[in-house]
Amino acid sequence: MTIAQRAPDYIRAISPYVPGKPVSELAREMGLNEADIVKLASNENPLGMSPKAKAALLAAVEDLARYPDGNGFALKQALAARLGVGLDTLVLGNGSNDVLELVARAFLDENSSGVFAQHAFAVYPLAIQSVGARLIEVPARNFGHDLAAMGDAIAADTRVVFIANPNNPTGTFLPGELIESFLKQVSPDVIVVLDEAYNEYLAPAQRYDAVAWLAKYPNLVITRTFSKIYGLAGLRIGYAVASPAVADLMNRVRAPFNANSLALAAAEAALADDEFLQQSYETNRQGMAQIIAGLDKLGLQHIPSAGNFLTFKVGDGAGVNLRLLKQGVIVRPIAGYGMPEWLRVSIGSEAENARFLAALEQAVRA
Amino acid sequence: MTIAQRAPDYIRAISPYVPGKPVSELAREMGLNEADIVKLASNENPLGMSPKAKAALLAAVEDLARYPDGNGFALKQALAARLGVGLDTLVLGNGSNDVLELVARAFLDENSSGVFAQHAFAVYPLAIQSVGARLIEVPARNFGHDLAAMGDAIAADTRVVFIANPNNPTGTFLPGELIESFLKQVSPDVIVVLDEAYNEYLAPAQRYDAVAWLAKYPNLVITRTFSKIYGLAGLRIGYAVASPAVADLMNRVRAPFNANSLALAAAEAALADDEFLQQSYETNRQGMAQIIAGLDKLGLQHIPSAGNFLTFKVGDGAGVNLRLLKQGVIVRPIAGYGMPEWLRVSIGSEAENARFLAALEQAVRA
Repeated sequence: MTIAQRAPDYIRAISPYVPGKPVSELAREMGLNEADIVKLASNENPLGMSPKAKAALLAAVEDLARYPDGNGFALKQALAARLGVGLDTLVLGNGSNDVLELVARAFLDENSSGVFAQHAFAVYPLAIQSVGARLIEVPARNFGHDLAAMGDAIAADTRVVFIANPNNPTGTFLPGELIESFLKQVSPDVIVVLDEAYNEYLAPAQRYDAVAWLAKYPNLVITRTFSKIYGLAGLRIGYAVASPAVADLMNRVRAPFNANSLALAAAEAALADDEFLQQSYETNRQGMAQIIAGLDKLGLQHIPSAGNFLTFKVGDGAGVNLRLLKQGVIVRPIAGYGMPEWLRVSIGSEAENARFLAALEQAVRA
Repeated sequence: MTIAQRAPDYIRAISPYVPGKPVSELAREMGLNEADIVKLASNENPLGMSPKAKAALLAAVEDLARYPDGNGFALKQALAARLGVGLDTLVLGNGSNDVLELVARAFLDENSSGVFAQHAFAVYPLAIQSVGARLIEVPARNFGHDLAAMGDAIAADTRVVFIANPNNPTGTFLPGELIESFLKQVSPDVIVVLDEAYNEYLAPAQRYDAVAWLAKYPNLVITRTFSKIYGLAGLRIGYAVASPAVADLMNRVRAPFNANSLALAAAEAALADDEFLQQSYETNRQGMAQIIAGLDKLGLQHIPSAGNFLTFKVGDGAGVNLRLLKQGVIVRPIAGYGMPEWLRVSIGSEAENARFLAALEQAVRA
């Protein structure tokens, strides 16, 4: 028996997350010029980051030989003020991926199970599996979460349920009242993770205030990120809001310096830049309309999306993806999500969206 | 039963890591001016970061709305070239804390145990405990690792042994030949983690090449960091070198974007800046001599250190620490390491060391 075979079975069974292909990697593989590549594969903000966040980052560069503030005091204060919560409800993460893992590590083990939806974000099953807990996948309804079925799927040993709203990669949205009635029905012994990574892209009529529910449901954990509308994906910073007892447990398994100094500084400034947020929201709204119009023109089915991306049906997802890559356009194949006939495109700038649509026209007619 | 009480017992029993007090926190607590505070508590490089690393970081700021390269290709290439290893032996981490946790998460579970030494780095027992494995702590010999006793302590269910060389917080050093003979004796079924966070501070006569041992001992995992001599603690970047099968398992539990874009860029440049490394080494050598002379003058016992810090005996560690804090000097109390009569000071600049020694003279005479 080799040393690798001594690892627990559930570890050896993990298939790692497959990220969107980096521009540098496609350039190497296809011999393309990086500047000619359009990447619409990772739901990144085409406007970049807030200028205020950038200024805050640059001001913090002098002090990088120092460890970060492990308590993230300044960012937590800013979040607490904005959300109307106490500092003890907050858990900072190295991206929201980190806080999702912290929930699994704090509450799941080899004797428990986690519930998640078919076609939901890949990190949920990875987080459940990596601690040896049992995976309970619930079939989707119209590509979205079937909350009634998820409630029924909760077993005696279930400790965590993951809900993404909007969901990635399908973009489906659950109205706030449905989520609250789910919370009402679920046993208070089960953590309900509400992943709101794309929350800021919701239309005004769709918005709801999950943080206000915490007072009533101490088993609720809301996760958010600065990687999407805030444009800080490269810096890695996200957070969770939870009841103090739950946040305390998550903080116990958190690495002491999981959030880096520049991410802390930039996120604090980004949080205060409402103008950039609004501009990013508008850019997404317009780009979404542009891409929907283009897909409609090509006669391609797509799933209504509340996020900054759109999932559309091409039949041969792998083939069309390859033909897009050859033209220097990176989108996201989602065969790993059980949707081999579909591709996901992130909403980019007007020019990027146009490049994508032109390349897609070639790719589907090939 | 509350939701927090449903977490596994081993999670609820965790006492989180207590980091060195940040300057901003002391300023708040004592009403001091941040500029007047000397922090020698976290083994940080008093020279800051390499100018080449800073330039590389600034060049990467434009692209932060993009996710990092999850494979860290460019940094891995630089490490592979420098260390003479394949890309498949490398695991990048959000600091070396992250790779230490990845070893525990990939190889330990509720049915296994991990071995570590008394007075060794606090993250080892935290990593073991956080996955529910049994803790086997082996008494130190002269404040350092007792390798013979550690070998004897390995149980049938032991999957990981942690060795720090030099050790933090005691600064003790094990010659390379002792570690290699330990590797020879340990079952190949047990991972031996060799934490070399302070490796670059070793005197030329102390140096040894652990990476060369990997060919013979596929159960060896070497961990290193850019937080110490490279001066990038605030950015969070470290790495492990291991046999490909072990690295593969660690990469399966690794978060896909655990290393941020600026850390990747800065570390790659820092690795190539031999001049800065040499200068940092010399600064540490001189500062160590300065602090030893000062402690000797005060008649305070200290443990010979191969790192960039020194641990010294004051009797009432908590009392002396408080009197240092009131003077704006932050060192590290190590009661949590079972050494309440001792304090640890990081080697700073000449001026910082002098401020520390003057404040200490006051503090011990109070």
